[in-house]
Amino acid sequence: MPLPFPFLDLFGTFVFALSGATAGVRRRLDLFGVLVLAFAAASAGGIARDLLIGAVPPAVFRDWRYLAAALLAGLITFYRYPLIERLKHPVQLFDGAGLGLFAVAGTGKALAYGLDPVMAALIGMLTGIGGGMTRDLLLAQVPSVLRSELYAVAALAGALVVVGGDQLHLPEAVMAAAGAALCFGLRVMAIYRGWRLPIAPAAGQPEAPAKGERPQ
Amino acid sequence: MPLPFPFLDLFGTFVFALSGATAGVRRRLDLFGVLVLAFAAASAGGIARDLLIGAVPPAVFRDWRYLAAALLAGLITFYRYPLIERLKHPVQLFDGAGLGLFAVAGTGKALAYGLDPVMAALIGMLTGIGGGMTRDLLLAQVPSVLRSELYAVAALAGALVVVGGDQLHLPEAVMAAAGAALCFGLRVMAIYRGWRLPIAPAAGQPEAPAKGERPQ
Amino acid sequence: MPLPFPFLDLFGTFVFALSGATAGVRRRLDLFGVLVLAFAAASAGGIARDLLIGAVPPAVFRDWRYLAAALLAGLITFYRYPLIERLKHPVQLFDGAGLGLFAVAGTGKALAYGLDPVMAALIGMLTGIGGGMTRDLLLAQVPSVLRSELYAVAALAGALVVVGGDQLHLPEAVMAAAGAALCFGLRVMAIYRGWRLPIAPAAGQPEAPAKGERPQ
Repeated sequence: MPLPFPFLDLFGTFVFALSGATAGVRRRLDLFGVLVLAFAAASAGGIARDLLIGAVPPAVFRDWRYLAAALLAGLITFYRYPLIERLKHPVQLFDGAGLGLFAVAGTGKALAYGLDPVMAALIGMLTGIGGGMTRDLLLAQVPSVLRSELYAVAALAGALVVVGGDQLHLPEAVMAAAGAALCFGLRVMAIYRGWRLPIAPAAGQPEAPAKGERPQ
Repeated sequence: MPLPFPFLDLFGTFVFALSGATAGVRRRLDLFGVLVLAFAAASAGGIARDLLIGAVPPAVFRDWRYLAAALLAGLITFYRYPLIERLKHPVQLFDGAGLGLFAVAGTGKALAYGLDPVMAALIGMLTGIGGGMTRDLLLAQVPSVLRSELYAVAALAGALVVVGGDQLHLPEAVMAAAGAALCFGLRVMAIYRGWRLPIAPAAGQPEAPAKGERPQ
Repeated sequence: MPLPFPFLDLFGTFVFALSGATAGVRRRLDLFGVLVLAFAAASAGGIARDLLIGAVPPAVFRDWRYLAAALLAGLITFYRYPLIERLKHPVQLFDGAGLGLFAVAGTGKALAYGLDPVMAALIGMLTGIGGGMTRDLLLAQVPSVLRSELYAVAALAGALVVVGGDQLHLPEAVMAAAGAALCFGLRVMAIYRGWRLPIAPAAGQPEAPAKGERPQ
């Protein structure tokens, strides 16, 4: 198991699935579409990680609890959407928590499979952002990770804490918690304080939609 | 070979490729784009299955007949599109037939690779829906599987018949045929009788298109 | 290493990353989004190739120079976009050069992993077009490879030169150079002379945008 505390993995799966299911309900998918989106948002990052490091079948196909957590989140969101919606910025906060947990878990597993520290951090970041990217791509949208405030950076920061701790032989569980907390904190600051990365100065004016592009 | 009758696999490849090529011609792709879409719709589900269960290179890259079947379907659709179009609901029916064949074939192969029954059914469903999802994603559309009437459910039902037969030690070929027929039948009822899954009640009103979303 | 001249691989990575980063700046992604797009455009084709032939972890995760080349291209494009833009048809030409290099490199690696000649050419073509397809899909656009003039055909032509040379036991480096040059030449003719493949005659009139489709 990638994390010292396996239940954290399940919690990450659950909150990512909430994020996917929420996006699915908003786009008026049917029940199965919502469940597919919940599962995809929850597991695509981990599946990508496992395919890339050669851990097949991916963990999500070897332990029924991941599937159960994702489906439970999807069902709750589908039948109790007003409850989920009432929480402030629900998608973004669920996303931020899942992001931190998945980034540190993915980094740890990549290190365990012998990848170099920098590449393990990259895989960890992908573990974190892969679910959200897949959620957005399945809805035919540009992944919010490519535009959002400090999204991938937050995942990478959390991953680098784990890699740094591994290099310095610090306690794995403590560094995983610190990495996840840093990632989540960066996301919260990005959402509430508007922290964000620059946009290329030369592209300052919105361009006219190119041929074949959707209007903005 | 995943199916007791290998030619069924080729037939599924052919009809899925028709579905992909039809969508490509409608979107006015050029000849090669249509062939790519035919191949992607025909093989993406099987490729995903083989990557996930660790059967690399995927079957489609080890047997030229899959490629030939997909390209033949693509060429026929490209040069005889009016013929293909004249069949009623051609894309949907081709899709339904391919869906059943691929779902049972994928489930059988996943069982043969040692996956648990529930996970094998999930992989089987993915084998069935992966091609259509890839077809839609390549055309920058929300996959119809996420909205459509009983699409993924039909694939899953067919896959569960195979899994159930395997658990009860019933004859593999009979259960594969029954699973594919059930899946196809559910699709036909969904298309002609409008059988469908519910949409979340709380999302009853169509929302205004969000920023960055295409207008509906 | 897939190519006799490893630095060519890095050059291909660099120019593909320029293409991805340029598309990202145009769509006003933030700095990290531009870097992700640069990396995705540069490495998605090679990652797909390595997953399909079973070479995990993919090469790009085993050699930091690929990552460095992609990030360098992304940073240059982000901070010096007017310079990149001033070159005529920059995206298309970078794309054409990367296409040829990646198609021959991918074909060579697939042959080295024991794939049949036709399948190796297919994998080589995918290595070439996978990055651009991923770039377009991440921007929620129909991949230009499916519409463009002689795009995938050019990659396939380059790949077939490598396969043919391998069958005839001709010098690998010479045939790789010839294949890449043929691919690039076809792209140049397609861009400047308008060489293109036919569109299905029956679909001669643009159809009204279907429900859920973006307006053209």
